[in-house]
Amino acid sequence: MPQRQRLAIIGSGNWGSAIARIAGRNVLRYSDVFEPEVRMYVHEEMIDGRKLTEIINTEHENVKYLPGIKLPDNVLAVDSPVGAAEGADLLIFVLPHQFIPNVCNSLRGKVSPTARAVSMIKGVEVRDGQIRIFADVIEELLGCKCSALSGANIANEVAQDKFSETTIGYRAGDRATAELFFKVFDTPTFRVGLVEDVAGVSLCGALKNVVAIGAGFTDGLGWGDNAKAAVMRIGLMEMKQFSMDFDGVKSSTFTETSAGIADLITTCFGGRNRKCAEAFVKTGKSFDVLEKELLGGQKLQGTETAREIHTFLKQRGRLDGYPLFRSVYEIAYNDGAAKDLTSKL
Amino acid sequence: MPQRQRLAIIGSGNWGSAIARIAGRNVLRYSDVFEPEVRMYVHEEMIDGRKLTEIINTEHENVKYLPGIKLPDNVLAVDSPVGAAEGADLLIFVLPHQFIPNVCNSLRGKVSPTARAVSMIKGVEVRDGQIRIFADVIEELLGCKCSALSGANIANEVAQDKFSETTIGYRAGDRATAELFFKVFDTPTFRVGLVEDVAGVSLCGALKNVVAIGAGFTDGLGWGDNAKAAVMRIGLMEMKQFSMDFDGVKSSTFTETSAGIADLITTCFGGRNRKCAEAFVKTGKSFDVLEKELLGGQKLQGTETAREIHTFLKQRGRLDGYPLFRSVYEIAYNDGAAKDLTSKL
Repeated sequence: MPQRQRLAIIGSGNWGSAIARIAGRNVLRYSDVFEPEVRMYVHEEMIDGRKLTEIINTEHENVKYLPGIKLPDNVLAVDSPVGAAEGADLLIFVLPHQFIPNVCNSLRGKVSPTARAVSMIKGVEVRDGQIRIFADVIEELLGCKCSALSGANIANEVAQDKFSETTIGYRAGDRATAELFFKVFDTPTFRVGLVEDVAGVSLCGALKNVVAIGAGFTDGLGWGDNAKAAVMRIGLMEMKQFSMDFDGVKSSTFTETSAGIADLITTCFGGRNRKCAEAFVKTGKSFDVLEKELLGGQKLQGTETAREIHTFLKQRGRLDGYPLFRSVYEIAYNDGAAKDLTSKL
Repeated sequence: MPQRQRLAIIGSGNWGSAIARIAGRNVLRYSDVFEPEVRMYVHEEMIDGRKLTEIINTEHENVKYLPGIKLPDNVLAVDSPVGAAEGADLLIFVLPHQFIPNVCNSLRGKVSPTARAVSMIKGVEVRDGQIRIFADVIEELLGCKCSALSGANIANEVAQDKFSETTIGYRAGDRATAELFFKVFDTPTFRVGLVEDVAGVSLCGALKNVVAIGAGFTDGLGWGDNAKAAVMRIGLMEMKQFSMDFDGVKSSTFTETSAGIADLITTCFGGRNRKCAEAFVKTGKSFDVLEKELLGGQKLQGTETAREIHTFLKQRGRLDGYPLFRSVYEIAYNDGAAKDLTSKL
């Protein structure tokens, strides 16, 4: 019998906590496969005079980021990435993307090269004009293989066991790792699909937000259901086309998986990107102002990604192939009129 | 220069009238290709003591089915199918499906075999345990080639020139006909896509309604956005799989066109199927009762199609491959519990 796998969760926000609840239960369900203790890295903060790690470890609830939901007792909050990751065979990265470089650097050399990671990080890294998915960033920094998980997964719904699907994209030929992560995540109400496509799954999670800005514009313009569905369809096609240059990307990841079309649907009907884009058209305020008013100053991923994509495509002389992405950028950053959203499609 | 094409519209309901407005304008825009007069078959009825055909021909408005929208002067209402179709080179069928056999029989032998038709009819014909698309029914009854048009097309939005896309599915090798119909329909706010797949386009329009029943169940259950997106994704996969047995069906028609994914989105968020299915769960009333209360006694297409599909699959021992279609049927007709919608997925 092979050694049991030790699981660590790096991150403990809303989504990280929802996932810790599932993973904590599943390691007990498959007790022949996994060690029972799951360490979870929690960025320490004080809540009413008590440490958040202490609250989680005594009350088994992340009162700040997932209030009202109990975590399994075998999930142990730890206040450093190294403390959580030490000795782990499987690492789940579920942090805001800006923390990845620092956290991975702190883990460098402390994670076994035979360990395997999965990235739940939305967004892409843009550096020196190149776009990289975070699974690749993690793989490079830690030297261990990294898959990606993404899907139509509003965290609070998952935490309440409302039916959801998700998608794990795994590295070419590495189905065995995917099947191990399947056991970590799959439940009767959280159904995991597996596709051999890390980049596709990751890019879906980043690019859908650009389309949601476009969908939000149609809402703000009062253009109706036909126009919104058309923008979503065209956006899905541009997401797919944009991603085809990345290694191993499959068309079907976009059009057939939870990470693709299903997540696009939830993001274009719910979500902050859609909401701010609608307000942008209705109020005439800039996105900077709306981020302060509606998001407490947090940056919107859709507009940031639209700008990064625009720079990337412009440098390569490929903007003409992406009329929707281009229009979203022009409207958000360049005083383009929202009503011209579809004029170049 | 080839002879100019004469266009006839068979049908004048909400969708037929919206399409007459577009087609009437486009024949004038391409006056080298089309005859200016477009005859439209109107089922005669009296409105405040006046004939509907007379109202349309003097006031250029279908006051009953598309009030408030002016039709072009070159659209001529005619009170019989034969009167409309006589001498036509291009025929647009846009009638409720139950009228197709009678109308086509009345046209038999009166339409040139070189004429070409396009079907905008939703639904499928089920006879002797076989499922047939109406483009095939029309082709067989009239002896002329028939394409299909379907898409995310709420008629009132199209009539108001709100941005929409649609899809024409054409017969294998017959791109020329598709390009002619493209000129009939395409405008800057009604964008026509062409795919060599009549059956796929037709089946999308019928099967999406079954999925919308499932999506409406999730709304009624209060299951949230993840579950609804999951049901839509799974439904799209079952639509595609079900259709693959039909001649010439392409997977991409389902996942990439307005007739496929985009129409599924509009139907699962708006539309009567979703609405009645939500009410079914919330009120516990039967669909028969809800049809009377919410639809004035009109039959719901989604539940009817669910039953037809169920019979078809059961006869062939193939129900196991379609857990969502099957669950929708069980819940709608067989006292299945709505909360079990996803238990067999």
